[in-house]
Formats: sequence, C-alpha cells, structure tokens
Amino acid sequence: MKKIGVLTSGGDSPGMNAAIRAVVRKSIYHDMEVYGIYNGYQGLIDGNIKKMEIGSVGDIIQRGGTILYTARSDEFRSEEGREKAIAQLNKFGIEGLIVIGGDGSFRGAEKLTQKGYPCIGVPGTIDNDIPGTDFTIGFDTALNTVIEAIDKIRDTATSHERTYVVEVMGRHAGDLALWAGLADGAESILIPEHADDFEDVIERLKRGKDRGKKHSIIVLAEGVGSGLDFGQRIKDATNLETRVTVLGHTQRGGSPTASDRVLASRLGAKAVDLLLEGKAGRVVGIQNNKLVDHDILEILDEEHKVDFKMYELSKQLSI
Amino acid sequence: MKKIGVLTSGGDSPGMNAAIRAVVRKSIYHDMEVYGIYNGYQGLIDGNIKKMEIGSVGDIIQRGGTILYTARSDEFRSEEGREKAIAQLNKFGIEGLIVIGGDGSFRGAEKLTQKGYPCIGVPGTIDNDIPGTDFTIGFDTALNTVIEAIDKIRDTATSHERTYVVEVMGRHAGDLALWAGLADGAESILIPEHADDFEDVIERLKRGKDRGKKHSIIVLAEGVGSGLDFGQRIKDATNLETRVTVLGHTQRGGSPTASDRVLASRLGAKAVDLLLEGKAGRVVGIQNNKLVDHDILEILDEEHKVDFKMYELSKQLSI
Amino acid sequence: MKKIGVLTSGGDSPGMNAAIRAVVRKSIYHDMEVYGIYNGYQGLIDGNIKKMEIGSVGDIIQRGGTILYTARSDEFRSEEGREKAIAQLNKFGIEGLIVIGGDGSFRGAEKLTQKGYPCIGVPGTIDNDIPGTDFTIGFDTALNTVIEAIDKIRDTATSHERTYVVEVMGRHAGDLALWAGLADGAESILIPEHADDFEDVIERLKRGKDRGKKHSIIVLAEGVGSGLDFGQRIKDATNLETRVTVLGHTQRGGSPTASDRVLASRLGAKAVDLLLEGKAGRVVGIQNNKLVDHDILEILDEEHKVDFKMYELSKQLSI
Amino acid sequence: MKKIGVLTSGGDSPGMNAAIRAVVRKSIYHDMEVYGIYNGYQGLIDGNIKKMEIGSVGDIIQRGGTILYTARSDEFRSEEGREKAIAQLNKFGIEGLIVIGGDGSFRGAEKLTQKGYPCIGVPGTIDNDIPGTDFTIGFDTALNTVIEAIDKIRDTATSHERTYVVEVMGRHAGDLALWAGLADGAESILIPEHADDFEDVIERLKRGKDRGKKHSIIVLAEGVGSGLDFGQRIKDATNLETRVTVLGHTQRGGSPTASDRVLASRLGAKAVDLLLEGKAGRVVGIQNNKLVDHDILEILDEEHKVDFKMYELSKQLSI
Repeated sequence: MKKIGVLTSGGDSPGMNAAIRAVVRKSIYHDMEVYGIYNGYQGLIDGNIKKMEIGSVGDIIQRGGTILYTARSDEFRSEEGREKAIAQLNKFGIEGLIVIGGDGSFRGAEKLTQKGYPCIGVPGTIDNDIPGTDFTIGFDTALNTVIEAIDKIRDTATSHERTYVVEVMGRHAGDLALWAGLADGAESILIPEHADDFEDVIERLKRGKDRGKKHSIIVLAEGVGSGLDFGQRIKDATNLETRVTVLGHTQRGGSPTASDRVLASRLGAKAVDLLLEGKAGRVVGIQNNKLVDHDILEILDEEHKVDFKMYELSKQLSI
Repeated sequence: MKKIGVLTSGGDSPGMNAAIRAVVRKSIYHDMEVYGIYNGYQGLIDGNIKKMEIGSVGDIIQRGGTILYTARSDEFRSEEGREKAIAQLNKFGIEGLIVIGGDGSFRGAEKLTQKGYPCIGVPGTIDNDIPGTDFTIGFDTALNTVIEAIDKIRDTATSHERTYVVEVMGRHAGDLALWAGLADGAESILIPEHADDFEDVIERLKRGKDRGKKHSIIVLAEGVGSGLDFGQRIKDATNLETRVTVLGHTQRGGSPTASDRVLASRLGAKAVDLLLEGKAGRVVGIQNNKLVDHDILEILDEEHKVDFKMYELSKQLSI
Repeated sequence: MKKIGVLTSGGDSPGMNAAIRAVVRKSIYHDMEVYGIYNGYQGLIDGNIKKMEIGSVGDIIQRGGTILYTARSDEFRSEEGREKAIAQLNKFGIEGLIVIGGDGSFRGAEKLTQKGYPCIGVPGTIDNDIPGTDFTIGFDTALNTVIEAIDKIRDTATSHERTYVVEVMGRHAGDLALWAGLADGAESILIPEHADDFEDVIERLKRGKDRGKKHSIIVLAEGVGSGLDFGQRIKDATNLETRVTVLGHTQRGGSPTASDRVLASRLGAKAVDLLLEGKAGRVVGIQNNKLVDHDILEILDEEHKVDFKMYELSKQLSI
Repeated sequence: MKKIGVLTSGGDSPGMNAAIRAVVRKSIYHDMEVYGIYNGYQGLIDGNIKKMEIGSVGDIIQRGGTILYTARSDEFRSEEGREKAIAQLNKFGIEGLIVIGGDGSFRGAEKLTQKGYPCIGVPGTIDNDIPGTDFTIGFDTALNTVIEAIDKIRDTATSHERTYVVEVMGRHAGDLALWAGLADGAESILIPEHADDFEDVIERLKRGKDRGKKHSIIVLAEGVGSGLDFGQRIKDATNLETRVTVLGHTQRGGSPTASDRVLASRLGAKAVDLLLEGKAGRVVGIQNNKLVDHDILEILDEEHKVDFKMYELSKQLSI
C-alpha cells in the first residue's frame, strides 16, 4: 500500500488532531503518501482532499477540534453517494482509509471495505461508548473538563443550602457522568444504565437534609433526561433550592489531556500498521492496557457496558 | 481601635479568601485583634465568631469560596436581629467591622455604622456591578472561567453549522457577558443594558447564514433572559440548529486569578487602614488604578454603568 | 478487623487525598474505625494520630498534597523506632495499616507486617516507577502539568531559532519524560533507560538545523542529568541558542486529574477490602485495567520497566 | 490613509494575536486595506508581506504566540536596511504601520516615522516594563502562569522542611515577580529594584526556621540573578534544604487571559484610530483605566517604575 487517506467523522473529540498527526507521520515514516480528506464522508464525495506533509500536522497535537473538520453526510448513506466517494478514491489513487470517529463513522468504513477499499476505524468520541476499547479518544479530556467545572461549583456550594444538578454529555452511555461523579465525590449520579435510581436520589437528598447536610451535587447524564427538568423534579419532591448547570459543548473542546494525546498517537500509528499488514475492516482500541484490533462488524454488534463496580463504589464513598 | 471583625456576605466570589487573609494579617501587623464572623450577618447574630491568627489564613489565598462562609439573614433585616448582632459585637469587644460582599451586604454595614460600629465595605461579587470601583473581587476570575468555556466551544464549533448560546451570570449587569464576548470574539452579545438588540442578533445570524458562515457564538447575560428560551427563539427565527450552555455556578468558584488575589489583598488591607484612621461607613474600591473609598450611602445610590465603547468595539471586531 | 490506620509517606503526589478519602469512607462504610496518622512513620512513632470521620475527608478529593502530610523518619529505620510505632498502634488499638507512598514506604509496611500488623501498600508517586501497577497515583496529574508547560513553550518557540530543554522529574524512571515527550511531540526525549542517546539528540539537532528547522524541544528526565548542564552541552556541540526550563516541584502539586482521582479512589477502597479479607503485606495496583494486588516483597524485588515501543513511536512521530 | 501594515517584534507575548486581530478587523471596518508583515522588521526588509482579510484572523484571539512571528533584525539597525524596508512599504503602498512589541521595537517605529511613514506602537511584552501604560499585553497571562506554578509548589511544600526558589522572568523589571509574590503569598520577593534585600531574605528565613516554620517560597526576578545561584547562596547561609524552579519560556506562552485579550483588542483598535486621525510616532497604552497615547520618544526616555506600596504590602502580609 502506497497511498492512504484519513478523515474524521461524526461529533469531534479532543485528541482527533493528535490521531491525524500520528497517521500522517507514521505513513510518511513508512514511505507512504497520505491524503487528508476534509469534512468527513461528504468531503470524500466532494473530492475535498489534500496531500499531507510532515509540516501539515505540525503544532496540532495540543489542539482541540479536528483540522480535517467533520460533517454529516446523508449522501454517503446512499449507494450513489458511495459510488462518488469511490470515484474520488480512485482519482487520487487512495488504496486504504483510516476513519477517526464513532460507531456511525465505522458503518461507513465497513461499506467501503466491502467495496475493496480497506478501512481501519479509530475510536474518537467523548462518550466512551465504543465496544472493543477500554477508552475512546477524547473521553479523558471531556472528563477533566467536567470535573474542573464541578470543582468550581463545589467551591461555592459549601455555604448555601442548595442542590446542584450538573448535566453532562454521553448520549446513551453513562461513563462520563459515572467517572466524573466518582472523581468529584458527587452525592448522586444518574446514568441511563440505572435511570430508575431517581427515587434513590430523592431519598438520599431527603436523608441528607434531615441530618443537616447543606448542599449536594448530582451529576446527570444527558441520556437520562434534561438537567432543567430534573432540577424541577428534585425541587418539587424535596423543596430544596436547586441550581442547574448545562455544560453542553464545552465538553467537546479543549486541549486534549496527555492521556488522550498518547492514546491518539498510539491508535493512529496502530491503524497505519494494520493497513501495512494488509488488514481491512478493523477497529483499533486499547484493552487491558494493550493495543488491540477487532472486526468492525463485531464492534457494531456489541454493546458498550458501564462498569457496575465503579457505580457501587461511588455510592459507598459518597455516604 | 484594637479589635475588629470580618465577615463575608451575599453570593460568594473567588478572591474573598485573599481579602480575608489581607484583613487578618494587616490587622495583626498593626497589633490589632481580629475576629472571623462565620455565616455572614446571621453568624454575627448567633455569635459564630472566632479569633483569627496568622495561621488561620495560611494556604487560603489561592482557594475559591470563603472560609467564613456566607448566608442570608432575614433576621438581620429586623431591628431586633440587629440588636442581637450588636450584643455579640459588645460581648467580643469588636469595635469595627469589615464586610466583604455586594450592595445588599453594604446596606447591613451602613445600619451598623449608624449604631456606632464603624464598618467598611469591600466589594466582592463576580457581577462587577458595584459603583465606585472599576472592578470587584471575583469578576476577573469569573470572566476567565467564562472564556475558557467559550474557547472549548469554539474548538468544536468550527465544523458544524450551528449557533451556540452561552448563558453567563451577572444579575442585572452586563459586564461579564460584555467582557467575555469581547475577549472571545463572540459574534453577538446580549446584555440587559441593550436587551433590545435581539432583533439585531437575528439579523446578524441571517446575514451570516446567507454568506456561508457556519457557526456563531452568542453570549447572553442572564439578566436578559434564559439561555434555553433564547436558543428556542433563535431557532424559530432563523431555523439554525442551536445549542445552549448554561455555565451556572461554575462562574462563582475556582481558584482566583492573580489579578483578583492582588485586588483582594490591596482592598482588604486598605479597609483595615481606614478603620485605623477612624473612618466609618466607607466602601473601598479601585478607580483609575488607584485605591479609593466612598461613602456607603453614595455607593448604594449610584448605578453601575456598562462601558458603551467596549460594546461598540465588540461589534466592530466581530464583523 | 475493627480499627485501621492510614498514613502517607515519602514524596507526596496529587491524588493522595483522594486515596485517603476512599480509605476513610470505605472503612466507615464497613463499620470500621479509621485513624489518620500524620507525618508518615515519624507521626506513627510520635503518636500523631486522630480518629477520622466522614467529614474529615470532605472537600479534599480535588486537592493536591496530603492532609496527613508526609515526613522522612530515620528513627523508623531502627528497631527501636519501630517498637515505638508498634506501641502507638497498640495504644490506639489499630490492627491494620494502609500506607500510601512509594517503594521506600512499602519497606516500612513490610517490617510492620512481619511484626503482626498487617499492612497494605497503595502506590502513590508521580514517578510511575512501582512494579505491579501500570500507573501510580499522581503520574497522570504530573504528566498533564508537564505537557501544559511544554504547550506554553511551544507557543513561543515557533518564532525563534532556539532549542528548548525541559527538565522533568522521575528519579530513576523515564516514564514522565517519555509520556510527556510523546504527548507533546517533543523532537527528542532523554531518559535514564536510554541515556546513551545524547549523541543521537545532537545528530537530530544538527540535521534539523541544516534543513532549516527553527526550533526543537527536548524533554530531559532528571535521572539523566541536569537540564542546565545539558543545555550547555547542546550549545557547545551545535552552537544553537538553548533555553532551559526546570519544572521542579510544580510537578508534585496541583489538583489531581480525573484519572488520578478515580485510580486513587479505587485503590484506596481495594486496600480496605484486602484488610477486611485478612490479607497482609500486599501492594494494590491496576494492571491491564483491573485491580490487582501483589506481595510487597515481590514488588520490592522487581524492577519497573519503561515501555520501549512508546519510545520508538515517539521517534517515528517526531521525524 | 487607505493601506496600513502590522507587525510583531521582539519577544512575543500572549495577546499579540488578539492585538493583530483587532488591528486587522478595525482597519477593514474602516474600509482600509491591511497587510500582515511576517518576522518583524526583517520580514519588512525581505518583503514577507501578505494582505489580511477578516478570515485571516479568525480563531486566533485565544492563541498564544503571534501568527506574524517575530525575529531580530540586525539589518534594520542600519540605514541601508531601513531603506530596503521603506522600498517594501512603497512597493505595497503601505502608508502607516502598527508595531506590536517592546521598547526595542518602538525605536524602529520611531525611525520609520521620521522617514515619513507614520507608526504607532502597541506595548506587547510580559515584562510590564513600558512607561506610559499601566499594563502591557501579556503581563496578566504570564502572571497567571507564574501563580499557577507557585500554587502547585505550595501544595507539595506544606509537608517538607524546605525552601523553594522560583525564578521568574521580567528582564530588568520586577513587576512579574512582585505581583506573583503578592498574589501567592510568597514569604519573600527579590526584585531588581530592591536587590539589596538579599540579607533581609536570609534574616526572614532564619527567623522562620527558629520559630518552626517548615517551608518558604521565594520569588526571584531574573533581573536579580540566577535561581540556581540564589538557591545555593540560601543553602550556604541557612543550611535549609532548597529547591529551585526555573519557569523559563513557559511564561511567554499560553492562551491569553481575558484581561490580556480585552486590553489587546482595545489597544489594537486604538492604534488604528490614531492612524486614521493622522497621528504618527505614538505609543498607545492604558492609564488609570483609560486608553491613552504618548510620543514614542517620550516613552523611550522615561523609566518604568515598580509600585513600591505593593512591595511594602507584600511584606506586611507575609509576616
């Protein structure tokens, strides 16, 4: 393989730039040409493609966002759209593709692989909801963004009889809320995987109130519902003054943490190695602290699971 | 004067601890005894008072919140409540009082001054809405918290056709939103002092959309309305996908910036100097980069004004 | 077991407070009494011991340093000193001990275990040099402190023909330098495990200079030598203007990252579990993303190894 | 005036990009063409000049460094070099120039003004050593970088009998060290303006040691001498274990604070206003919280003074 392409797709996450850098430099190290495809699959269809050099990825390892941008592409979901994409791959002589993104992005990678264009998926999302990897690129950064916000709330929380609800991202996964709640000693954590715990939260708040506890912080995963709604429900149920913070897209940006940069560098390089070895239709990941790769279809079939023991631990430590 | 007290009152702000430290150490430097009054005016009524030593304020200059806590006190608003407070002052032999907080807190200080207990107000609030000072303690820190959040949103904003609304604090004042908007190059800023600009915001968004602008960030002061409501109104008016971040109480916490620590140290020390000079019923401040003091009543009568030139500048630079 | 003690020993690291909190709350959750021993082994000898309650560890999960302090104790190295320590354990009725620290601290834990006082070691050091665990508490925070510093240097580096040497901690281990260098795209990394690479660094600098490269960042582990000496040696060998940053003890402090807080919480809780199960003389750790425990003697016999593949990767990506 | 140029010169400072953005956008707002001159005066000589558009300065307000780079130019110091520069100005039709930098940069601006090319200086340096302005662009950011480093040292300092020396930048000015020391409650501050205080520092350390003080932090301005030398001198004089941190070029980088971004935006815009008003040979600044401008020669003749009252205050509060 002498020419490969790289694109980012879906919601962006901090560390994607570090992954792009690793793909580009590792490819050049192995004497391959590497092309950046801008705006995800739509850019592939549109031929928004440029050859990357060592300098193209200088000074980006520390930047949030993605220099290749991302975009949704309804067109790529059609057979016709994919034919256009393949025409562009042929035009540029691109033989293999590295796709950095989430499960939706991997579906596209699988389609192209079936057409004879080997693709490797690199898991980049703050949600940490990709099976086959213990961590996704961006999760650690988003997590630190969340806990820095909660730390600040905690500073001011100590002097007021108030309940603070912090709504965090994560789509259908509770990892971000769970880790943040554990890392910040939140009094309660509400995640989609245990959404029935709302009554338990109310009970804990009432018990706390009775024994004079002045303030509580509740971390709520967006997959459970809206922070503002929950704030109102809590107020109705307990009569406690409740304040809501919606961290929103602050969680998607920021300079990636060391851990995300290292993970992105390792996974990006691993993806290049797989293409060089002739592999196709794989997703790279880190499991048990080792670099691994799995069949894309396998990944898409599996379901990500939250660590129940950590959930239990968070309850034991927030007594 | 040989014995003074210090309390924090109202909403807390980063830098209050640095102010407390300055009051305590400056007092001790001048061979006075200094008492910390916990939980604001309510703590004064309840006699929640402790003698402070040099070590009592060690390792706090960098901490958010206030080690003296704050609390609302309905009781202090009654003549009866204030009599109780005075009884405590007499009991501890406290001759003068330094009150760190906002305008509500200064009203209490004025009452006690009238009763013969000289008080000095130190402006501590993130809202920057106290007349007689160019900056209040906590404003700079809150401002940096806001721009760090917007920086993160900007990282991820570049690749999606979206409008981001960021709701920031400030009560009836637009300073926090205005400075943050200018500092972060926000496309539009909505502040209570120019709340009629909503139509202008919509116009700018539409024009931007027409010339292919992909994303816009709008900073909204809470005094104008709810971020979620404005997000909906924008979506209705422009059909642009809109995302809302509500920074909430993250803006009240965090380690104070250098500027807030220095300001708090200078103002706290100045307040002690005033008591030593026999002054009463004054509020300290920084104006034109110089330490000043004003009559409390004068401060309470005046109205804080936002800098109109900066508002104009922000529009010129966000073309 | 109904009464346990906890102490921190050796150089402190961010996350130790989170570990203390976990030990205290997990113990109370299991209806045990838990005693904080201040100033490490010396405090144990001196009886500097206090009963901890849930509130004793409130609002500390996010703080750097250790609320229990640490200290060296020459006295504890003598049989006589250890007898005094045991007398204190008996006096307070402490049956088991959790020791948070590095290998030196574990040696003490082993001695007490042999005397019939079961001890569990929790690896807390920024150096990441403890065998039997993939990560030590504090490493991730120190790593992020380092990369934030290098990010800042990189901002200003781009416009000057200069070589920047950044000296980082790590004692005899190169992990901190290696991970930081990889995470920040450093041009060269000098670690004790490959200290002979100095000539290679010079070669890379010269080649870079010849092809017009303006600036380079070199991360140097303190185990290799002094940053200032290396700066001089580089200047002598290449005639490049060289600037040196010595991060020093900034790397030991700071609010722990989410990852360190979660790791500390899990390891602290695991240590309590082991005591409850009747284990003694064990060190807890995280390996392959799973909580594990090893015999202390085994840990003290092994040698920590740096990840050679990551070292190679850093070279491939910094071409 | 229809065409102006902008360059950055000397040591870079955080906020220079925000100033460039303001110059570019304010110029375009007033229907002028604006040219970016890369690599300072040397780039002017070399004709390294590009027309700037609104988009040229998008997404840079939050970035450290300068997108226009800086460079030293020995050539520009000669009459011949300056003739080449003027030839380039004529070639591009540039009528006026905005120079962002320190006093050395302003000397060049004065020379060009004398030749009939009106120049306006914008004070950008972390040293805060430019007369005619209370603050220079970059000072606030560097200050916060320093205090965040000292905060971290303080976290770990509490448990060891040690003296920490932190060497900070500032060339011949003590502002950075003084403000940082005051903001962080340093036990001693050594600045060029009071370099004779070394004996006083030793006295304070000895007194502290005698009354059981465990640790001290000393902030040392580079203008006084090398941190490592002072560390050794302190050790020799007091026998206290001493650790040294050299923050180096970390102080020159980093995302600018809100305050620096706002200052840079206002000063950059003011400089454009002055050119439009037909002014020449001026330096803009902020004094007493108001935008001002002074004759360049006047600025070059004056001497920056450190605030002696703040120095005194720092001593009173660090008792």
